[in-house]
Amino acid sequence: MTLHLQRDLEAVKSQLLDMGSLVEKVSNQAITALQERNTDLSAGVHELDLTIDQQEVKIEEECLKILALHQPVATDLRFVVCVMKVNNDLERMGDLAINIAERASYLSSHEPLGVPLDFHRMAELAREMVKESLSALLNLDTDLARKVLAKDDEVDEINRQMFEILEEIMLKDPTTIRRAIHLLSASRHLERIADLATNIAEDVVFLVEGEVIRHLPEDYNRT
Amino acid sequence: MTLHLQRDLEAVKSQLLDMGSLVEKVSNQAITALQERNTDLSAGVHELDLTIDQQEVKIEEECLKILALHQPVATDLRFVVCVMKVNNDLERMGDLAINIAERASYLSSHEPLGVPLDFHRMAELAREMVKESLSALLNLDTDLARKVLAKDDEVDEINRQMFEILEEIMLKDPTTIRRAIHLLSASRHLERIADLATNIAEDVVFLVEGEVIRHLPEDYNRT
Repeated sequence: MTLHLQRDLEAVKSQLLDMGSLVEKVSNQAITALQERNTDLSAGVHELDLTIDQQEVKIEEECLKILALHQPVATDLRFVVCVMKVNNDLERMGDLAINIAERASYLSSHEPLGVPLDFHRMAELAREMVKESLSALLNLDTDLARKVLAKDDEVDEINRQMFEILEEIMLKDPTTIRRAIHLLSASRHLERIADLATNIAEDVVFLVEGEVIRHLPEDYNRT
Repeated sequence: MTLHLQRDLEAVKSQLLDMGSLVEKVSNQAITALQERNTDLSAGVHELDLTIDQQEVKIEEECLKILALHQPVATDLRFVVCVMKVNNDLERMGDLAINIAERASYLSSHEPLGVPLDFHRMAELAREMVKESLSALLNLDTDLARKVLAKDDEVDEINRQMFEILEEIMLKDPTTIRRAIHLLSASRHLERIADLATNIAEDVVFLVEGEVIRHLPEDYNRT
């Protein structure tokens, strides 16, 4: 690898880390808005999302520049392509966080449902998964990537529980339906953020081990 | 462009078209399963999805090979990167179709709700959007790409109407809640298939005109 290529790869890694921090920030803000019924926080996420969108375009341009200038092959080529995919996934996470914030905004202006929903644990897991999947990519750490895959199962389980709790309350009291549907959506969006982190982790395993695990049965290769 | 590069680009274009046909097939099957309450059709989609997953891996490998072998620059480079993104979007559409088929499978084994839901029009629009966005990419046709963007608004509107109709029926009769939520999900998944076609169309405009429209306000550049 030439020194110039190495330098440019380091630069794009650092930009991707920044992008990851932005996504983490916007997700945290959306979840806090949801949990604390804070409309100011909901409104603030849009500005962050703009920055994420700009960062996505910048990283993609950087990757194209690296491909055109250095014409990397083998592992370096795969790494750059992987960064482009991850960049795209991170941007989608930002969009999902915006959706959560919009649900939070609706819910803040209506009576709380007063049911125990474990958004806290779900958000904590999603946050860890985003952080760890990025770290796995930047350090080519497949053990960490596989930890991310295992966490996704817990997120799916919490999402399923949310569905049951919310269905029950809707059945008991139909006036809760609209709010419950907004909460269901927020839960599903959070679950999709975790899914996207799972995509990243799968891409890391593929990058390092050349093994496509993203289309294997769910219980395969997760430990 | 060398003749070899041109030949390989044509090959990958044709693979992408096949992928598009597969996605169209699986989406049609899922929607028909939903509309006709046909459990056999629901079950059949999983096999198609496996083929889509394999095709995705194949196309990505082809693109990596083109990048490594021919080290394309400028428009050719952007085109190959765009194919990789579109390939990814198509695979996600396949996953969404599977989700719709799963909802269809649940709904087929329960009493129909008997409300008028315009899945037919929504599916038709989504189908056109997928077809046209791919055709726009392969012919670098930005007029067609912009038509796709305009159609997305209609899909969003139908999705919104579904929500209202389903909310109303849940309010009237809480025993419909679970089925209504499955229908809501199917509608949302279809709307996301259309969204992914929109992504493709935006990428085409960017590829041809170098203009990033994917992060502009919704009413910009849609005509």
